[in-house]
Order: sequence, then C-alpha cells, then structure tokens
Amino acid sequence: MSESETKSGTSPVSGIGRMTGFSDGVFAIVITLLVIELRVPEHRPGELLSALLEQASVYLAFLLSFGYVGVIWLNHHSVLRLIRATTIGLNWINLWLLLGIVIIPFPTMVLADAFAHAGTDGDRRVAVLLYALAAASMSAPWLAFFGYLRRHPSLLAEGVDEDYVSAQRIRPVVGMALYLITGALGWFVSPVLGLLGIGVMIIFHSLTSGGLRFGRWRRRRPA
Amino acid sequence: MSESETKSGTSPVSGIGRMTGFSDGVFAIVITLLVIELRVPEHRPGELLSALLEQASVYLAFLLSFGYVGVIWLNHHSVLRLIRATTIGLNWINLWLLLGIVIIPFPTMVLADAFAHAGTDGDRRVAVLLYALAAASMSAPWLAFFGYLRRHPSLLAEGVDEDYVSAQRIRPVVGMALYLITGALGWFVSPVLGLLGIGVMIIFHSLTSGGLRFGRWRRRRPA
Amino acid sequence: MSESETKSGTSPVSGIGRMTGFSDGVFAIVITLLVIELRVPEHRPGELLSALLEQASVYLAFLLSFGYVGVIWLNHHSVLRLIRATTIGLNWINLWLLLGIVIIPFPTMVLADAFAHAGTDGDRRVAVLLYALAAASMSAPWLAFFGYLRRHPSLLAEGVDEDYVSAQRIRPVVGMALYLITGALGWFVSPVLGLLGIGVMIIFHSLTSGGLRFGRWRRRRPA
Amino acid sequence: MSESETKSGTSPVSGIGRMTGFSDGVFAIVITLLVIELRVPEHRPGELLSALLEQASVYLAFLLSFGYVGVIWLNHHSVLRLIRATTIGLNWINLWLLLGIVIIPFPTMVLADAFAHAGTDGDRRVAVLLYALAAASMSAPWLAFFGYLRRHPSLLAEGVDEDYVSAQRIRPVVGMALYLITGALGWFVSPVLGLLGIGVMIIFHSLTSGGLRFGRWRRRRPA
Repeated sequence: MSESETKSGTSPVSGIGRMTGFSDGVFAIVITLLVIELRVPEHRPGELLSALLEQASVYLAFLLSFGYVGVIWLNHHSVLRLIRATTIGLNWINLWLLLGIVIIPFPTMVLADAFAHAGTDGDRRVAVLLYALAAASMSAPWLAFFGYLRRHPSLLAEGVDEDYVSAQRIRPVVGMALYLITGALGWFVSPVLGLLGIGVMIIFHSLTSGGLRFGRWRRRRPA
Repeated sequence: MSESETKSGTSPVSGIGRMTGFSDGVFAIVITLLVIELRVPEHRPGELLSALLEQASVYLAFLLSFGYVGVIWLNHHSVLRLIRATTIGLNWINLWLLLGIVIIPFPTMVLADAFAHAGTDGDRRVAVLLYALAAASMSAPWLAFFGYLRRHPSLLAEGVDEDYVSAQRIRPVVGMALYLITGALGWFVSPVLGLLGIGVMIIFHSLTSGGLRFGRWRRRRPA
Repeated sequence: MSESETKSGTSPVSGIGRMTGFSDGVFAIVITLLVIELRVPEHRPGELLSALLEQASVYLAFLLSFGYVGVIWLNHHSVLRLIRATTIGLNWINLWLLLGIVIIPFPTMVLADAFAHAGTDGDRRVAVLLYALAAASMSAPWLAFFGYLRRHPSLLAEGVDEDYVSAQRIRPVVGMALYLITGALGWFVSPVLGLLGIGVMIIFHSLTSGGLRFGRWRRRRPA
Repeated sequence: MSESETKSGTSPVSGIGRMTGFSDGVFAIVITLLVIELRVPEHRPGELLSALLEQASVYLAFLLSFGYVGVIWLNHHSVLRLIRATTIGLNWINLWLLLGIVIIPFPTMVLADAFAHAGTDGDRRVAVLLYALAAASMSAPWLAFFGYLRRHPSLLAEGVDEDYVSAQRIRPVVGMALYLITGALGWFVSPVLGLLGIGVMIIFHSLTSGGLRFGRWRRRRPA
C-alpha cells in the first residue's frame, strides 16, 4: 500500500492493449444482449404470424439499441486511436464509460415496454425521461476523458494535436445538453416528441462520428 | 463536428485489430447463446430419458445455428484477410454484418418451435419464410463490403487482386436469390421442402467457403 | 465459387490470431455461463441459510463445470502453441472442438438436477450416461486435430517434433475409451460409481495437462 | 502422458497473450452479467415510476458489483504487467482467480435480495457473511500468484524487482483478514455495519490500486 517509489515494479504508464480488449468484450456482449429478449412469442396454433407482428416494438428497441451501441463503439474506436498509452486514471475513466454502455439495454427495454403494451401517457413520459437521462449521463465520462488527455499530453499518439483534443470536449457538452432538452420535451410536452428526439440524436451521433470522417476520407485518399 | 482538416487527430484509415476483436467477441457470444435454451426438461421422476428425447428439435436448432454461425465466422475470417486496413465506412458495413449474425438465434428458435410443438402447417410456412428472409438479408452487407473494397483498393492487403474482390460480389447475390427462392418454396409449396432447402444452403455455404479452399490447399502446399 | 487459382486473393494458410481470439471468447462465455444458474433461492423470511445450503448440488455442478472448462482451456492453450499457422480445414476442426465445449453446461445441469432433486435411480443413470457420452464425444475433434497436423507438418511451430504430434493422438483415444467405460459403469452398475468415475477423469485430465508439465518446468528452468 | 523430455513439443513457458485475452473475456462477461437482472418491473398502468424506484436495491447491487469487478480488473491489469511469460502452473492460479470473479454476481444478488425485500435480520447476517467470505476467499489466489512469482523470478518482466513482488504478498493477507473481520462484524454485531464495512473495503481497494499509483504518476511524468 505504501510501497516506496524505488520498489515500484512497473511504469505507471502501460499500453492500451488490455483496455481495448476488455472494452471490445463489453461492447460485444452488450450489443448481443438484447437479442435474448427476442423470444418466440406465446401464440395459439396457426397464429404465429400475428404473434410475431405484435412484438414489433421489441424489434425496434433491439435495432435502436444495436445502432446506439454500434455508434458508441465507433466513437470509442476513434477516440482510443488518439492515445498511445494509458494510466490507471484513464483506465478508471474508461470503466466509467463502459458503465454507461452496460446500462443501455435497461432504459431501452423500459422504453419498448412503455410504448408497446398498455402503457399510459404518464408511463411513457417516465420511460422517455429515463432514456434521456441515461444518454445524457453517458456524456460525462467522455468529458473527463478529453480533460484527462489535455492534462496528460504525453499519452497522446504521435501526430495528434493537443488543440484538437481540447476542442473535442465540446461534443459531450453539446450531447448532454441536447439529451436533457429531449428528456424535458418528453416529460413536459409529449413523450412521442421525446422519443423522436432520441431517434434524431442517435442518427445525428452516427452521422457526426461516421459520415463526416467518411466524407473526408473520400477527399484525401491515403497511400 | 466541423473540425478543420488541419486539426484532424488521426488518419481516417486504421488497422483492423479492433474490428477483428470486436467481431470475434460478437461471434463467440452468438455461437454460445443458444446453449442457454438447452435446459433440463420438466419431467416426472423416472422419465428423464423420454423428456430429453422429446427436446430433439431444440438440439437440432442448436446444431443448425452453431453450424451456420461457424460458417459465417469462417467466411468473415477469410474476407478480413483480404484487407490491410479499415475506415469508419467499412466499420459501419461490418456492424451491419454483425447485426445479421446477432439476429440468427431468433429465427432459428422460431423454426424449432414451429416444427417441434403443435405448430400448424401455416405456422411452419411463416417460420421457414422468416428464416429465409433473415438469411437473404444477411447477404446485403457482404455485397456492400465487396463494393466498398472495389471503390477503395488502397485498403486491400498486399497481393490481393482487385478483380478477385470484384468477382466476389457474385456470391452474396447468388446467396440472396437462392434464399429468397427457398423462402418462396417454403411459403407457397411446402414448409418441409423449404426447411430442406435451408439445410442444403448452409451445407453448400460451408462447402464453398471451406471445402474448395481446402482442396486447393492440398494441391498447392505452401512453404 | 469456382475462382481460378490465379485470381486467389489470399494464401490458404493464415495466422492463428483470430482462431485464438474467437476460441478464448467462447471459453470465457461458457465458463461464466453456469453462474447464471446460481440464483437467490426462493425462501421464507429467516430461512435464507437453509435455502442456500439446499442448493449444494448446483454449486458442485458449477465448480465441476468451471474446472472442466478450465482444464480444456489449458489443453487448448498448450495444443495451439504447437502450430504456427492454420487453414480452413483446421479452423473447421477447431469449431468442432468449440461445439463440444459449448455443450458442457447442458449435461452438467442435467447431472446436478438428477442428483439433487427427487431424481430416481433410473434418472441418475441417464444423467451419468449423457455426461460420459458428451465427454467421450469431445475427444473426437482432438483426434482429428492431431491427425490433421500429422498430414500437414508445415503448419507446426518451429522446433516441434512431428513424432511428438503423432504420439499425442493416443491421449484422446484413451480419454474416449475411459469415458465410455465410465458411462457403462454408471448405466449398468451404479450411477454414483459413474459420477465418481467422471470426477476422477477430470482430475486425471487436469494432472496430465498441468501437473506433469509443471513438474518438467521445475526441472528445466528456461532462460 | 509420460512423454520423454526429448519429445517435448513446446517450451513450458509461453507468452501471456492468451492468458490476458481469456481473462479479459471473463471480466467483460461478469461485469455485464448483472445488467440482465435490471428488468422492466411488473407494474400496473401508470405506476412505472414507483415500480422503477422500488428496485433501488437492485440498482445499488449492480453498481457495487460493477465497481468491484472493475477494481479487480485494474488490479489484474497491474499485476500481469509484472510478468513477461506464464507457465501452466501460473495459468492454473489465474483460473483460480477467475473463479473468484465469476462468482461475484451470486453473493451480490443474495445481498440485494436480503436488504431489499422482507428479509429478516437473520437473513441479512447470512447475506453479509456470505459476501465477506466470498471476498476473503478471493484473496487466496493472489497470495498464490505472488508466491509463485517469488519462486520463479525468471517469469518477471524486465526491471521488476523481486523484493517488490515478495512485498506484494502482504496485500492479499491484509485483505483476507479485513474481510473476515467485516464478516464477523456483520454476523455477530450488526448486518448493516457489516454491509458498510464491505463498501469501505471496496472503496479502499479502489484507492490503493488506483489512487496511489495515480498520485505517483502525477509526480513522475514519463517521457
């Protein structure tokens, strides 16, 4: 516990191999977890088709969750390419990020349940607010991540600009604000409007993480 | 979001390590997921054996699903050896591929349920059609994958011929067509015939991805 | 499908990175899967302790399964160090190996169920036979694995002796024979005796894969 | 089984790649496993909010478990950086470590159940004792791990001091003692006090594995 500096076994800075492998394992499990909910519906003989169609909201929730986790994986992949090494401090922040990802299936299913079955308008407001709060809280560790990198520029990969990293902090702040607005919309105005807002947010996320870079790549084809 | 080119932190092209690791995680989970369905059957004392035998269709569905996911893993393994790097665009296509894989347990279990229990002929038609549609839709991302590589030849691994990649696009098209025919067969003619068609398709897939290459390997033993 | 040799995109021989990663994913999932069965038992207020103790056979089944999968992982780890590369043929054999591993939780739970609850003597015979048959059938892919390596010595890692690999084929044959004898013992003589035989087999496996090598390691300490 | 030394296929010492990959897979699965328990609560229409709030103890158990597994992963990550290679003996000890991790969700849920529902004081004593015993028993493999390294210094990574490794053995001994005291406190004095003790222990663990190193890192910034 109070080991002196001279007895230290390893450098406090390590490669990102295990951080990456562990994170990919968590992403892989979360993205496949919701398929467990896709079950053969109870049905009377001859009514399989209608029973399958009645589950539509479960399929949508599955697709929404798959797309959302996929987008976050792409972001995580991009961000980890900014660094060449990690510390225990950064590993803690990464664990915080993974906590947000691991939770996703829960608000997704609450949402599916509230909109599918005989959920009242009040229940739907609760479900939309819960989802928006979960999504908003997922932005906090990203802010910590970029802030940590700004304070420890020696962890950055070669050729990565410190200003670029600092500028990235605006993205989680904007995301958090927009999700909170979406949640307020769903709670005070209309749950359906809030649900639409969440869908728009995820599509927007996927476009800014995927689309813009994709466009750039077309213009500047690398060797 | 609108970061200028000069502030870009990393090249838009990255190694395929994480794409591979994440995909392998998803494959590993999906291929073991169905075993959760292999449960100790409810039975009266002394009737374990007959209760186990009654679950035969669940075992078959498990084996079918295991074999199918295994074949797709082998294909994924072969195809990813064609590339040396990836982009966000290609990562998106890979996520689309994984979506198809993650879904597999669901139509498999619908199939097992419809053929095992008191499913009517109509239910079986639905189950075969669902499985064929799921399998056919899984061909679409492969088409996108090869098309993307054709447009971005700089991503190809050393020594990989561009014409070879272009020619690969015929395989998902043929697969999609055959699965749709199989589904139509199951729906309009006979569900049992459709089920046989699906079995033949999977065996055919495994032979063309494994068998042919295996034959070639025997002939041309590498150093 | 019938692509000519000149258009081949990649060598039929590939590194074992993905084979290893995919296998480790499957091992990791299977070894943690049974913990899902360790549930808080239904109990009346104040009777948690006795309810926990009544589940003893589930804990034993969990430990047995954990140990068994662990031993197989150690074996898999040792065997894959014999090779430097893989082919689609060897990947197929590895999938066959993984099939056996994925199945383990099922006969384990049947065993736990038959010995814990009001299982009759007949049910216990069935459960022991099922477990022995599953364990015996798991030896077959190992036999195929070593046979394949004997026919393709170019896949062997540097310094690995071909005779050593050939000699390894005796182990799965012996294992298969012993598990079948154990199953027959459980079926014809006594299920408890069969269960003991299974326990002895797993301990024996763990000693021959771990103990002997461990002993050797002590004697010949490497640089 | 009794293969002569001259026929040995591979060195008894191997790289730690697979040990790491397999462990990360197990960690990733365990850390996401409890989220399966976060289910949409049964509720009457319009009462979703109160039904969600009633599950508070399940959320706490999930967070506790997530934090605990996260801390152990960080420790595992740190410890494995001390070694450059592994043997079958060390792989066995690592499996023993993983056994302790895989079990975590079970005592966590027993704890959540005893404190949430109509658990009696006696049930809560049982639950706290079970958790403390599970946590204490997890220290044993760490002791074996450091002891093994002390006897096999050739496995240590470059620049790692043997005295440092020997000194590390004090940590699991202290941890084991403190968890046993905590369990005794919960059993003989008060379950709530025991529960507080467990929380303090996990926070303490996270500070000693994360905080101290983190502090050092700030002082000695590496190149």
